[in-house]
Amino acid sequence: MNGILNEDENLPLLIHPDRWMTLAEDRLLILDRRKLPRVIEFLPCRDYEAVARSIEEMVVQGAVDLAIAAGYGLVLEARRNRLDSSQKQIEGLRQAATRLTATRPTGAHLARMIKDLLAAGLEALHTGGDPFQAILHSLRSKIEERDAAAQRTGRFGATILADGDSVMTHCFAATALLYMFKSAKEEGKSLQVYSTETRPYLQGQRLTSFSINQLGIPVTQITDGMPAHCMSRGLINKVVTAADRVALDGSAANKVGTLQYAIAAHYHRIPFYILGYRGPDPDTPNGAAIPIEERDPEEITSFAGVKIAADGVKGFYPAFDVTPPTLISGIITDRGIFPAHLISNYRRG
Amino acid sequence: MNGILNEDENLPLLIHPDRWMTLAEDRLLILDRRKLPRVIEFLPCRDYEAVARSIEEMVVQGAVDLAIAAGYGLVLEARRNRLDSSQKQIEGLRQAATRLTATRPTGAHLARMIKDLLAAGLEALHTGGDPFQAILHSLRSKIEERDAAAQRTGRFGATILADGDSVMTHCFAATALLYMFKSAKEEGKSLQVYSTETRPYLQGQRLTSFSINQLGIPVTQITDGMPAHCMSRGLINKVVTAADRVALDGSAANKVGTLQYAIAAHYHRIPFYILGYRGPDPDTPNGAAIPIEERDPEEITSFAGVKIAADGVKGFYPAFDVTPPTLISGIITDRGIFPAHLISNYRRG
Repeated sequence: MNGILNEDENLPLLIHPDRWMTLAEDRLLILDRRKLPRVIEFLPCRDYEAVARSIEEMVVQGAVDLAIAAGYGLVLEARRNRLDSSQKQIEGLRQAATRLTATRPTGAHLARMIKDLLAAGLEALHTGGDPFQAILHSLRSKIEERDAAAQRTGRFGATILADGDSVMTHCFAATALLYMFKSAKEEGKSLQVYSTETRPYLQGQRLTSFSINQLGIPVTQITDGMPAHCMSRGLINKVVTAADRVALDGSAANKVGTLQYAIAAHYHRIPFYILGYRGPDPDTPNGAAIPIEERDPEEITSFAGVKIAADGVKGFYPAFDVTPPTLISGIITDRGIFPAHLISNYRRG
Repeated sequence: MNGILNEDENLPLLIHPDRWMTLAEDRLLILDRRKLPRVIEFLPCRDYEAVARSIEEMVVQGAVDLAIAAGYGLVLEARRNRLDSSQKQIEGLRQAATRLTATRPTGAHLARMIKDLLAAGLEALHTGGDPFQAILHSLRSKIEERDAAAQRTGRFGATILADGDSVMTHCFAATALLYMFKSAKEEGKSLQVYSTETRPYLQGQRLTSFSINQLGIPVTQITDGMPAHCMSRGLINKVVTAADRVALDGSAANKVGTLQYAIAAHYHRIPFYILGYRGPDPDTPNGAAIPIEERDPEEITSFAGVKIAADGVKGFYPAFDVTPPTLISGIITDRGIFPAHLISNYRRG
């Protein structure tokens, strides 16, 4: 299960779940991203509730990665209640599924992951199988499928990159972005990256710059206010971000800030790409149908755990925004690169 | 000299220099903005070098405010060397002027302030007067002129505000913005404000939201990544920022981030105004002629004094950006509101 770790120690820590998560005898160990990059520490989760909290509290983040962590939460519950009656096992799994699905509403991967794994567990119970093994097996397949899809997406993505490009990204685009840069590097293309710090959690600074640096690609840290300035000075010639959810109309929800960078790129005639590697969510017709999670405003009015704002100043913390297809130069998937407004063709592929 | 403090205790602390700076017998006391809003503490400066460092280290910031603080730095030197020979006094004043002017390059107010005050001091020396009194008198006149100009600018600015408006601002637009909101409030207009936090120094969070809250106007704190999202959701219907320098072609340099908010406002058809209250700098023909200060990249790769970035990740910290006149709906001055591309008419006014 730690194949990738052994294959290439030089790969970024965050490129594959087996590098940052381990299912041990009595618990799940999750790399605590809040402490990266200065501290490498794994947080033990003994039950699905602990996993749910680790998702809510940003121990793990990113639409696909948190869906996989949630999947392991369901695995923990299936293992815990193995000796219970069938009825109690079903109840336990359903409760865990509900709790895990409710942790973060914007990404489409999480709900789908839990729905599929729950179905695998219930199916095993109905047919006399072992729901723990069934769920774990299904999760492992999904992890490998997703990794293969991220690698294909990365290879398609590398085709948009030219030698000498200076690419901006926002927040943490996870595996597909890293595979994209890795592929481009293997093709002999020399790149540099500008990474926004991504307040309030600083994923850009703590995860993205850290991981791109691990790939051996020069990375420059900027604040969330600097992208348009860098574009206006010719320092950036491509923008690539992930998406937590792509709608059938080609709208993309991603970490708040993405919209203003897409607008700034459009203004400066710089191509703006979305990594939407498994295509659009079939149940989301358009951008307006994507729920925008609002998080605790205390996360805005405090800074590094210390209250900053004056009393009486309230915070507002929408975690995502929606970029319309008219601002997206292409959506890079595991089946090729689609014009945003034709992304629904992905499902015919 | 503390007239305004006594006149209205309910005015924001940062609306007038006499509220945040005091010339005492043996030193200048400057309110330390790095500690606002949670701690009100004055930093003592015994000589111009201490004032220069307080400007470089952001104890005081904002183009006009730091120019006034620098002016007091020259006052300190004129007082210190009062008993020196005329030749030594000239040398001391010139050295202080050079040092103070070099602290921050982007704003146009600082160089002009020091040039004028130095001329007043040298003139006094030539005519047998007291350079300390001459410089102090000239500085006091400038402070009162600037305050009157800020109040006039604020009254013109209030004409763009309608009852119910939701106004976004970025960084700290200082006195003119506060007078604008104060005037609008006195006219019975109900407003609310969205304030960006303005990384890395968080002036928006620490100074702007603090001051607007002191005016009794509801203020919502957002991060630097959220303005376009808020615009896309109809939460903001006007944007107003300051400018550290306005060029004769109507370009405006302001805290980095301003450009992307101007672009986002343009995209959403939301008016974007600049407070450029004393008009354009006559020596700056266009935006390209404005030098952009680059500050210590450590300020980006650290967070609240703690190193965040992984080793090998470098930071980039341009402190300002330049917004072209095509994105500016109007430049609000003490002589009225000008279309940006006609701002050079200000000087004929």
